[in-house]
Amino acid sequence: MNWAVIMAGGSGTRFWPESRAGRPKQFLTLAGKKTLFEQTLERIRPVVGPSEWLVVTTRDHARQARKLSGLKPSQILAEPVGRNTAPCAILAADFLLRRDPEAVLAILPSDHLIRKAKVFQKALRLAFDAARETRLPVTFGVRPVSAHTGYGYLESGALYQKSRGFEIRRLKRFHEKPDPAKARAFLTSGRFYWNSGIFVWRAADLLDAARKYMTGAWRISRSMWKGNFAANMRRRYPAMPAISMDYGLMEKLPSILTIPVDMDWHDLGGWHAMKMLWDKDRDGNAVRGNVLLVESEGNIVKGDSKRLIALLGAKDLVVVDTPGALLICAKTQSESIRKIVSELKDRKEHRYL
Amino acid sequence: MNWAVIMAGGSGTRFWPESRAGRPKQFLTLAGKKTLFEQTLERIRPVVGPSEWLVVTTRDHARQARKLSGLKPSQILAEPVGRNTAPCAILAADFLLRRDPEAVLAILPSDHLIRKAKVFQKALRLAFDAARETRLPVTFGVRPVSAHTGYGYLESGALYQKSRGFEIRRLKRFHEKPDPAKARAFLTSGRFYWNSGIFVWRAADLLDAARKYMTGAWRISRSMWKGNFAANMRRRYPAMPAISMDYGLMEKLPSILTIPVDMDWHDLGGWHAMKMLWDKDRDGNAVRGNVLLVESEGNIVKGDSKRLIALLGAKDLVVVDTPGALLICAKTQSESIRKIVSELKDRKEHRYL
Repeated sequence: MNWAVIMAGGSGTRFWPESRAGRPKQFLTLAGKKTLFEQTLERIRPVVGPSEWLVVTTRDHARQARKLSGLKPSQILAEPVGRNTAPCAILAADFLLRRDPEAVLAILPSDHLIRKAKVFQKALRLAFDAARETRLPVTFGVRPVSAHTGYGYLESGALYQKSRGFEIRRLKRFHEKPDPAKARAFLTSGRFYWNSGIFVWRAADLLDAARKYMTGAWRISRSMWKGNFAANMRRRYPAMPAISMDYGLMEKLPSILTIPVDMDWHDLGGWHAMKMLWDKDRDGNAVRGNVLLVESEGNIVKGDSKRLIALLGAKDLVVVDTPGALLICAKTQSESIRKIVSELKDRKEHRYL
Repeated sequence: MNWAVIMAGGSGTRFWPESRAGRPKQFLTLAGKKTLFEQTLERIRPVVGPSEWLVVTTRDHARQARKLSGLKPSQILAEPVGRNTAPCAILAADFLLRRDPEAVLAILPSDHLIRKAKVFQKALRLAFDAARETRLPVTFGVRPVSAHTGYGYLESGALYQKSRGFEIRRLKRFHEKPDPAKARAFLTSGRFYWNSGIFVWRAADLLDAARKYMTGAWRISRSMWKGNFAANMRRRYPAMPAISMDYGLMEKLPSILTIPVDMDWHDLGGWHAMKMLWDKDRDGNAVRGNVLLVESEGNIVKGDSKRLIALLGAKDLVVVDTPGALLICAKTQSESIRKIVSELKDRKEHRYL
């Protein structure tokens, strides 16, 4: 059967002050009326029904994930601490393989935005079939529309097959976030895709690879089911290596597939990304809430509907107004919000974190 | 006797959003813990006691003025509408002359900051004596410390007398707010002083001048006491010409005195002026409230103690956070805050005004 493993363990600070510890990115409503987590579930639903969903999150967010998803407790795996994507995928594969020896898993981040859901769904169906048939992992590439330096890239190789309007290609190599020159070269070459972090793989094949290339993690995972699962998780999971699926497992394999999917995908890296999502006025301001702009250009402002935010002669600022804290940040610096968060940590101002 | 007439009718927008309609500048606590109005009263008290105070304000602010001053209702004259300083001074002189034919009035704005109260008090005593003796109006000049283009200037002439450590000079001419070149020339000449708007004059002499040079206003004032004063004010005061004391009355006179007083005087023209008053950090930020600054320079930030305001990479901004409205303004534009206020008026957003 086809299963969806939704990874919801992320804990970012890039959307401070909205993303306090209790509300990492996947639980924010940055675009649309629902959280990115809920949008992820809605997007999967036409391909994989809720009874075949498994959410992996951290203990701190298990309750929130359960509430938003409506899933049964048995469909939520709660990590005592986050350990990146490889341990999470290995554990999920192990868990599901025990129920379904033929399980094929789509493993998906829940903090990304995908605006062409139909295209995603078509590609997901194709990827399930391809993974089952080829027994290879299938990654999702996104044709780059800019020389983005905040994303990882997939370098594609030979065409493997054309099917249902998609190309399935051999994956040549994973590339980490490039510098600007490299990103420009990637953009113009036509062979490089943004790495969406989504992959589809047979659970049995994933675990075979884990046994071979991440033996320690594989062993920890196997040991979870001897005795009390919850107690084992608490005690043993922290020993997992914090390593991503790409680098811990997939890079080691001789053969991987990739499907380029034009699904209008975005990994929102911070408030500056909102300029792409929200309507802009003719002066390039993207605003939400009760905002008055006078002689102001290129600002991103998020308030609520009651309080008035008035900008006069302001240029290229990010302004985020929440009940407990207000952020005013130069747009060029909006990727450095962690500096504020770490300063608050130093000062032990936990109520703002 | 010596009397103090405190003018508290101003209604500015330069300190929006703190200075909503209900709280013009004189009723704000911009420097120190008390409002500028209260500071004005405290400063006068050692020279003129409260029983010789008269506050002239607009009807909207009469209650506030009474509450802050602790004066009797009979010591508050409430204008139905503001009509600049000349009608206010004529009315006050008329009112006090009926009680005290020898009254000498110090007429003082209540929205200025004077940080050397002792010097002011010494000069005020001297001015009372000089006005009584010479029967001329005595103005207070302030030695300019910058080529300020937001102030009016007094051009001084010949020395009239040296007394108690002060010079009393002839006033040659009033000058309106100069352009930058003129302001620089004024600054270097040494003969020009900032016009503090304070003057001292015998009530009888002031009314003589009014009868001669502002006959209409003088007549309206005289008519107030025939019948019901409050009803007369409501009906007749709006017919007063809106004109300042300097230009309506004093400029017409052949002879005026001026005392240069180094009293650290400021007419706070807007939020940008706070950089002068508040402690600055080594990056030139002047802040009040719970403010976190990271890589930010030259900002003026006013919040409250609870909400956190975090600035990251922000430069030369004015940020004023109030419960109902938040202002973010380029420092260079902070004299244009009326643009926000007029935009809010256009939109009929009265709750923010």
